[in-house]
Amino acid sequence: MLHKPGVSQSLAHLIATTRWDDIPAPVRHQAKRSFMNFFAVALAGCRTGPVEIALRSLGEFSGGKQATVVGRAERADALSAAFLNAAGANVYDFCDTHVRTVIHPTSPVAPALLALAELRKVSGPDLLLAFVLGQEIQARIGLAISPAHYDKGWHITSTCGVFGAAAGSGKLLALDERQLVWALGIAATQSSGLCECLGTPAKSVSVGNAARNGLWSALLAAKGFDGPPEPLAGVQGFYNAMGEPPRLDLVTESLGESWELMNTSYKPYPCGFVIHPVLDCVLDWRRDNPDAEVTRVVVRGNPLLAERTDRPDISTGRESQVSVQHAVAAALVTGKAGLEQFTDACARDPEVLALRGKVEVLRDPSFSTVAAAVEITTADGKMHKLAQPAARGSDANPLSDGELEAKLRTAAAGWDPRHDIAPLIEAVWALAKSADVSKLAAMAVPKD
Amino acid sequence: MLHKPGVSQSLAHLIATTRWDDIPAPVRHQAKRSFMNFFAVALAGCRTGPVEIALRSLGEFSGGKQATVVGRAERADALSAAFLNAAGANVYDFCDTHVRTVIHPTSPVAPALLALAELRKVSGPDLLLAFVLGQEIQARIGLAISPAHYDKGWHITSTCGVFGAAAGSGKLLALDERQLVWALGIAATQSSGLCECLGTPAKSVSVGNAARNGLWSALLAAKGFDGPPEPLAGVQGFYNAMGEPPRLDLVTESLGESWELMNTSYKPYPCGFVIHPVLDCVLDWRRDNPDAEVTRVVVRGNPLLAERTDRPDISTGRESQVSVQHAVAAALVTGKAGLEQFTDACARDPEVLALRGKVEVLRDPSFSTVAAAVEITTADGKMHKLAQPAARGSDANPLSDGELEAKLRTAAAGWDPRHDIAPLIEAVWALAKSADVSKLAAMAVPKD
Repeated sequence: MLHKPGVSQSLAHLIATTRWDDIPAPVRHQAKRSFMNFFAVALAGCRTGPVEIALRSLGEFSGGKQATVVGRAERADALSAAFLNAAGANVYDFCDTHVRTVIHPTSPVAPALLALAELRKVSGPDLLLAFVLGQEIQARIGLAISPAHYDKGWHITSTCGVFGAAAGSGKLLALDERQLVWALGIAATQSSGLCECLGTPAKSVSVGNAARNGLWSALLAAKGFDGPPEPLAGVQGFYNAMGEPPRLDLVTESLGESWELMNTSYKPYPCGFVIHPVLDCVLDWRRDNPDAEVTRVVVRGNPLLAERTDRPDISTGRESQVSVQHAVAAALVTGKAGLEQFTDACARDPEVLALRGKVEVLRDPSFSTVAAAVEITTADGKMHKLAQPAARGSDANPLSDGELEAKLRTAAAGWDPRHDIAPLIEAVWALAKSADVSKLAAMAVPKD
Repeated sequence: MLHKPGVSQSLAHLIATTRWDDIPAPVRHQAKRSFMNFFAVALAGCRTGPVEIALRSLGEFSGGKQATVVGRAERADALSAAFLNAAGANVYDFCDTHVRTVIHPTSPVAPALLALAELRKVSGPDLLLAFVLGQEIQARIGLAISPAHYDKGWHITSTCGVFGAAAGSGKLLALDERQLVWALGIAATQSSGLCECLGTPAKSVSVGNAARNGLWSALLAAKGFDGPPEPLAGVQGFYNAMGEPPRLDLVTESLGESWELMNTSYKPYPCGFVIHPVLDCVLDWRRDNPDAEVTRVVVRGNPLLAERTDRPDISTGRESQVSVQHAVAAALVTGKAGLEQFTDACARDPEVLALRGKVEVLRDPSFSTVAAAVEITTADGKMHKLAQPAARGSDANPLSDGELEAKLRTAAAGWDPRHDIAPLIEAVWALAKSADVSKLAAMAVPKD
């Protein structure tokens, strides 16, 4: 039989019974790192087109000023704030990645919990525990149908994120197991999001909805709004409708013993991850050779690098995020690979454009997807050979705590150089000791 | 190839270019009939549990009082009103049915348009035209994957309804073809709803979302929020993700020449449609024999009747909606088959319960699903033979305009006997001459 009852109940049981004391120290610390990265990417995205339009549109229907919109003076009702912060955090695909499912796991969960924390008192350990559980539930649900689910065109961050937001919010609301199954059911019937929308603002709608609708699912369940007993594996439930025979063992195997949050990667650069090892090489070299005139660059990497990013002719910021030629050229010209290196303006910069034409990409199956080698030839005829076996941000070479802090500092300064982000950084590291996190998100808003 | 580009554009073209003059008189009249039926079922559902809880929950996040909640003094922001009226209209499955797809077509579309009509000036012809187009778009999109889509567990009223709400709202907002494709894309990435939730309040969430999110899709597109060029048939689009090879010819065949609205049925009784011909027989007989003592009833019908509704032992109102024994017994005891015959109280009524045990169901493949024969034996030993070849409400025997009016009158009186519904009935029939429909929905609210 395809379907086994009880999976939803197993997840509800985990959510209801797990206590802060059950969470190992490395998982607690990783949760803080995810919040650090979240505030960085939410600040990066907070003034982009999709957030601007959605904020204006929702503002016409919302009277509440309950919760913070990261990086902005405007406040919104809690559901809308959850939407806007999730949408903003994911705009650049600069957010974190659960590698096994390709879920960007923090964007749907953190905004729901932060919005709820402005409605009722939530301590730092409460927040972190709910966050760890939300991450666990969405990853587990996604693992059972990965990678087929994403390959079919379902935007897994959205379709599974709604469960993570519901689970985490349900934990903060102290729902019992029965109510948690209802919350998962209400989330299941709202699960949506298509990869066809990637590369357009429409993508942000499903990511925002994942946070908003997950939060709302838990709030409805708390009021007694019920749902089916087995929304995931039921005969007409989530897995059956999604059309992939689920590996239900992956949902429950070692549940509560291992934590999927530990399989999270954080990106140093706002572009395709396969480009990352190339940028590591180029940026290191450029730092030591700021004035060299480059005449040719040969990049060697896993075939996926060429397949996805061999795009010498691009014209927009969004396209530039998946062009290795652009990334190399922009890094050589500016010495950086931040948000401003992937804008429309940079994509059309004549100096960058000229250099793009000098970058060649070679396929080499002996390279992993996180490894690359780069040969840079300079005007003096010298060739400089560089190699990165494991990109910064990959499992084998994770961003340090300091690098995550720096990512947040850079994002904050990007919109407002006077924004003093030090208190937020300090507050994130101190989360496990905080009695009340209601002011946390507001620290991500520049003062007048 | 599975995918053919251009389907989304074809639909957008239809929406953008169709004028009121293009709509034939019978289609215009059917649109009014659908609104009459809508107000009846929305009034019937307006004080049920799902609406009560959702109204309280949304009230915490919404400051707006822009739009009417049918049957209630409370007002809500336009998005929430669209949600609540769609959820309420569909609670009892007493709403209309697009027979070929099993979409309940008015619940997602009418609430979105009525909410919008309270935000900006909309004439009666504008409203009816947008309604006809919304119905057409959702039916066409659903036809391409029916019946497999529903059979797989997708609640097609929800998954396709969001397109209908987006299309109709887009028409009222006078979106151009490019914006209409965006609206369909934003709708596509929000398309969701699982049959596993049928029979629970969670069902109402996806139906409410279809109206709310469809309306919001059009509002976002109007503000320049863009999406992919082919959200339906694109490689990672709606049809591919839903996993059914679409019959795209059914989406575009005779588009703008035939109107799916004409394939709509309206129910006289709030229970499973296969029970309807049985109730026709029993109610007619009971009217002429109010005092007879019934000792036995034998019902003969299409095998589907027994498969779906042979349930002599039920205990809740919801179960009673799919029990032919209950329907027959309640009709014989009370002489009616309205909402109060399908409540928990009626399901537990001792007299009804006793009579349920005397009802037998026989399968006869020579009957269509809308036909039935009933033999009633009375205490005097007489046997009364009755037959209904085409149930009231079926294609061959549609509800008359007067019956639809009566359905609305009964629903209005159900919550408030003093509610004077005559002005609303008059206004619906006069829609094509109305210059401003902003007050229409408010007529469905009893005055203090």
